[in-house]
Amino acid sequence: MHHGKTKHYGAQELAPGRQPSHQRFPLTHLPYGAFAVEDQQHLCVAIGAHLLDLHACASSGLLPPTLTEACQAPTLNLLMSQGRQAWALLRKTITTLLHADVKPQQKEKAEAALHSIAGSTLQKPVHIPNYTDFYASIHHATRVGQLFRPDQPLLPNYKHIPIGYHGRASSIVVSGEPIIRPIGQTRPPAEEVEPDFLPTKKLDYELELALYIGQPSAQGTPIPISSAADHLFGVSLLNDWSARDIQSWEYQPLGPFLAKNFATSISPWVTPMSALEPFRGPAESRPATDPKPLPYLYFAADQKAGGINVELEVLLLTEAMKANRLQPFPLSESKAQDLYWTPAQLIAHHTSNGCNLQVGDVLATGTISGPAEASAGCLLELTRNGTRPILLPTGETRAFLEDGDEIILRGSCKLSGHPRIGLGECRATILPAHT
Amino acid sequence: MHHGKTKHYGAQELAPGRQPSHQRFPLTHLPYGAFAVEDQQHLCVAIGAHLLDLHACASSGLLPPTLTEACQAPTLNLLMSQGRQAWALLRKTITTLLHADVKPQQKEKAEAALHSIAGSTLQKPVHIPNYTDFYASIHHATRVGQLFRPDQPLLPNYKHIPIGYHGRASSIVVSGEPIIRPIGQTRPPAEEVEPDFLPTKKLDYELELALYIGQPSAQGTPIPISSAADHLFGVSLLNDWSARDIQSWEYQPLGPFLAKNFATSISPWVTPMSALEPFRGPAESRPATDPKPLPYLYFAADQKAGGINVELEVLLLTEAMKANRLQPFPLSESKAQDLYWTPAQLIAHHTSNGCNLQVGDVLATGTISGPAEASAGCLLELTRNGTRPILLPTGETRAFLEDGDEIILRGSCKLSGHPRIGLGECRATILPAHT
Repeated sequence: MHHGKTKHYGAQELAPGRQPSHQRFPLTHLPYGAFAVEDQQHLCVAIGAHLLDLHACASSGLLPPTLTEACQAPTLNLLMSQGRQAWALLRKTITTLLHADVKPQQKEKAEAALHSIAGSTLQKPVHIPNYTDFYASIHHATRVGQLFRPDQPLLPNYKHIPIGYHGRASSIVVSGEPIIRPIGQTRPPAEEVEPDFLPTKKLDYELELALYIGQPSAQGTPIPISSAADHLFGVSLLNDWSARDIQSWEYQPLGPFLAKNFATSISPWVTPMSALEPFRGPAESRPATDPKPLPYLYFAADQKAGGINVELEVLLLTEAMKANRLQPFPLSESKAQDLYWTPAQLIAHHTSNGCNLQVGDVLATGTISGPAEASAGCLLELTRNGTRPILLPTGETRAFLEDGDEIILRGSCKLSGHPRIGLGECRATILPAHT
Repeated sequence: MHHGKTKHYGAQELAPGRQPSHQRFPLTHLPYGAFAVEDQQHLCVAIGAHLLDLHACASSGLLPPTLTEACQAPTLNLLMSQGRQAWALLRKTITTLLHADVKPQQKEKAEAALHSIAGSTLQKPVHIPNYTDFYASIHHATRVGQLFRPDQPLLPNYKHIPIGYHGRASSIVVSGEPIIRPIGQTRPPAEEVEPDFLPTKKLDYELELALYIGQPSAQGTPIPISSAADHLFGVSLLNDWSARDIQSWEYQPLGPFLAKNFATSISPWVTPMSALEPFRGPAESRPATDPKPLPYLYFAADQKAGGINVELEVLLLTEAMKANRLQPFPLSESKAQDLYWTPAQLIAHHTSNGCNLQVGDVLATGTISGPAEASAGCLLELTRNGTRPILLPTGETRAFLEDGDEIILRGSCKLSGHPRIGLGECRATILPAHT
């Protein structure tokens, strides 16, 4: 279902200044998404408070014929597979189309393909064949380590090798889908009692970025660090929901499983890498005194500008806060540039053993935390595993998430001389467990 | 490409007695596969030394119309999604078709769809959306634990919770595809040296069964243990290739990643669960004195007959053995009934938190080892992490796999009063690393 069709657009309607700072879709952004059109799914780009239906644009002859099939597909995968030249051509075409001095006939057709975002149902824009979750924030790794291994917070491998594991692709859902509290086995540590099988008492979020792979690699053929960035299509927000009590009982010796795979949320808009170009910079958390990355992870240009300066925040909206019409409560702020490893390093590492990447794969960064404890990207860190609950404006406290809580991730890039771009939101509400 | 088409068949041609014991395809077996027909892939079933082209059978009107589309698809996923009644109908139809007293006109059409397996190129029969690897052999878990944690070989969670993690779906290949030795970071334990980035020196195989999910589950809806077996379509052999030196350096704290995801091999034939019915039995490695499974993992009928009595063996064929025309050297024998957890328990556990299963998903058992050290399903155990190399008939020794080595997994079921069925082989040769 969609409605709220807009017949005319102009500078005023599309002006980004009318949007909140975390949801800025100026002409320099143009993130891709997908929305429901009756029982179909159409691709679109966001512009201001509107979305431009790419399927409709292709039908009315506004797009190059080589892009018609990709733009009329239900997901971005075909466009991704067509490669960087196709991505650049589509972006240039749409930019021209939405520019103020577009020809009247084209403008009329484009106007017919515009809808308000607020009146549309956004859906999952990419078929994600494989989902990998990294652990690229040294601040997160250190503080989580302090909780469980005070004598050795950061393991000896951390500064040498990007730590990662495979997540569950089947349970990735788009922002807005509610999350059902998982049930699972837990056992208090160091107690010789039988484990329980109950709804998790330690439900947590993890603030992450999703890196979408646009170009695949062949099995047996590593991607060199020097060309790794070419495989990247774009970026979204990602919430790697985690049940900490399930995790601590199950994760030895093979890592997290049911503590993570019940659900992962992604934001609906995929910001293309070309929109992020002005906001690149060094990975800021690697001091010069740290070990130099091994050659397969080292590329001078990547060290200099491989990081992405996305500013991130997490907000909480409880049922009581909704009832009292309070604004979401800010839990933390951090930035992706504080990650220890760059996206190119993650890609080069992932394929260094010959593992193949597929079009649409998601490589998530892992929880993005800053150096200060207040800038931690999950409750495990913020509340020190629940021992220091957070006081909310309603008088409520939170050690971990309660049923009815809504978690909102936001991200934006700003830099003097460039229009601010906002990645939008990734939000979801916790529903009670099925018991 | 296929050739070796057989125009006639009869008792002699299809007699299973002419096949090796690990590759028995009598009328009671009828495993599903896929083979190359020019640039297409056709589904088939194996019968004796032949395969029956299901695409051709559907074209010539031998199959029920409701199954035509599924049988003319390139993979088994559509048939899987049609459910157990469809599976039973197809199996019954094929059984009738291949029976000695089939009507002459049908016999003629069926004969036209028969090809020799030896002259065909078998391919990957299932699109596998997600791959989960369990750790269901208590003997494997215990002996691996002894190597790395002599004071606590079996972790406290093992007898309560089926341990598992997500593997890499993109790099699963069919038997026969060579495996390129992976390169990766390694560092000798307890030495304060910089890590190396070199071809693995500890390349290993892992003998496993692949359990194919035929019926999906909805996110948020656990599958009860009492109906878990209904979701299972069939079984293959699986080799979870592992680089032990990469694994030991990377796996803390989030589990195996590049040590595993360069490649996983599966055998080309999927043995349907209905063919395995006579060979079911209890999981034999759970003594009555062990903790009773929690209710979500306990179902009396499953405790009694949820295991699968597949007898397994691993063989090694080195280049020198090939040059000397020697038979493959048997490394070990074990059986799937020695697993601690049943397939139904793995399914119930996997979905107990609401994680959804998709049609074609693979749940692998983990390395299948027996109680004796000689029945271990990987070299890590057999050679005690390389410290006790195996002497081969050529005078060669193996601590881990060398370039040119071919590993062959075989499986079969035998029981008095029933024709023996053989699952075929899962084999692959190690190629040198790309350096």
